Amino acid sequence: MTAPRLQFLFELASTYSYPAAMRIELEAAVRRVEIVWVPFLLGPIAKAQLGVTDSIFNQMPLKGRYMWRDVERICNKLGLPFRKPDVFPQNGLRAARIAVALLERDQIAAIRFIQSIYLANFQDGLSISDTAVLERLITETGLDADAVLDAAAGPEAKAKLRANTDAAVARHVFGAPTFIAPDGELFWGNDRLEDALDWTLAAAGA
Amino acid sequence: MTAPRLQFLFELASTYSYPAAMRIELEAAVRRVEIVWVPFLLGPIAKAQLGVTDSIFNQMPLKGRYMWRDVERICNKLGLPFRKPDVFPQNGLRAARIAVALLERDQIAAIRFIQSIYLANFQDGLSISDTAVLERLITETGLDADAVLDAAAGPEAKAKLRANTDAAVARHVFGAPTFIAPDGELFWGNDRLEDALDWTLAAAGA
Repeated sequence: MTAPRLQFLFELASTYSYPAAMRIELEAAVRRVEIVWVPFLLGPIAKAQLGVTDSIFNQMPLKGRYMWRDVERICNKLGLPFRKPDVFPQNGLRAARIAVALLERDQIAAIRFIQSIYLANFQDGLSISDTAVLERLITETGLDADAVLDAAAGPEAKAKLRANTDAAVARHVFGAPTFIAPDGELFWGNDRLEDALDWTLAAAGA
Repeated sequence: MTAPRLQFLFELASTYSYPAAMRIELEAAVRRVEIVWVPFLLGPIAKAQLGVTDSIFNQMPLKGRYMWRDVERICNKLGLPFRKPDVFPQNGLRAARIAVALLERDQIAAIRFIQSIYLANFQDGLSISDTAVLERLITETGLDADAVLDAAAGPEAKAKLRANTDAAVARHVFGAPTFIAPDGELFWGNDRLEDALDWTLAAAGA
């Protein structure tokens, strides 16, 4: 029997996507669920749904202030490094296209790259749109940076990322991370990861 | 040694306050934490902070749609009844003043009333501003409905509810339920109840 699959929609600039991306493979493994990693862009969705071009956490200062403290507490609890970056949200477009290109080639390398992007952003305060940073993080996955950057800049990666975002809109996604079970059930937020995995198992009759 | 105290700020029209109000005394009891029940109004806060007079869940349809499904799942998991009410949000002003008046007199009766208001709203679809409903729910706590309604309509209850709401604003509260630990640490949402209780214990050196 093949393992039931849970879609994990993440945005590379999103704070709450960071702890989810770091712990999802462990939580999935202990439940025998397979994770489908789906990079998407929250910017176009927020703009279309709310008419805003900035993060909701910048638009609503008290909610933003709380979010930073909440994410810090979550990371402390999980043993994850965390430092509030000077710039938020960062531009995650290039990193997302690279993630798409990597996921087509090598799932393990892709996950390593995605996690290293979150650490660059929320541990090291680096720019995740900087070419030198991106090159280094791709190289650290063991793949050839030039080849991956070329693929990420190509029409296929662009189209795939746009398709991921369009599919998210069609599924009524409004935030990140979002988990979508095989039966279409939608879960929003790092704190719903376990529920999403358990739902996926139950829906599969496991 | 006295038990450490956690403030529980709840709004009687709020969906996520419902499961929190139903389970908080149990979760607090097993940890030896004392709960300070604090009714407040979210309406004036949303208006001041966001300039909206309606619930954010009505302002953002996709988020609202998700919220109803999320609350239903939470209630299913907890074994709590749930039915989406026809009207949302209801006007919780009178119920909140009654809660304030009851909390001054009898904590057990107050909690019983508060929980019955949530059930009236999210199980039975009743109007929680209707005098007959309010009278019945007060009577069911064992107290005299006329005396409590008089006290709730008086200047003390009004002033206390306003003070609760002003204090929430001063603590940067932006949603309900919110939990405030003795050291000022703020937690937002039913799903942060356990964290808030554990934080309260840790802050007390327990």
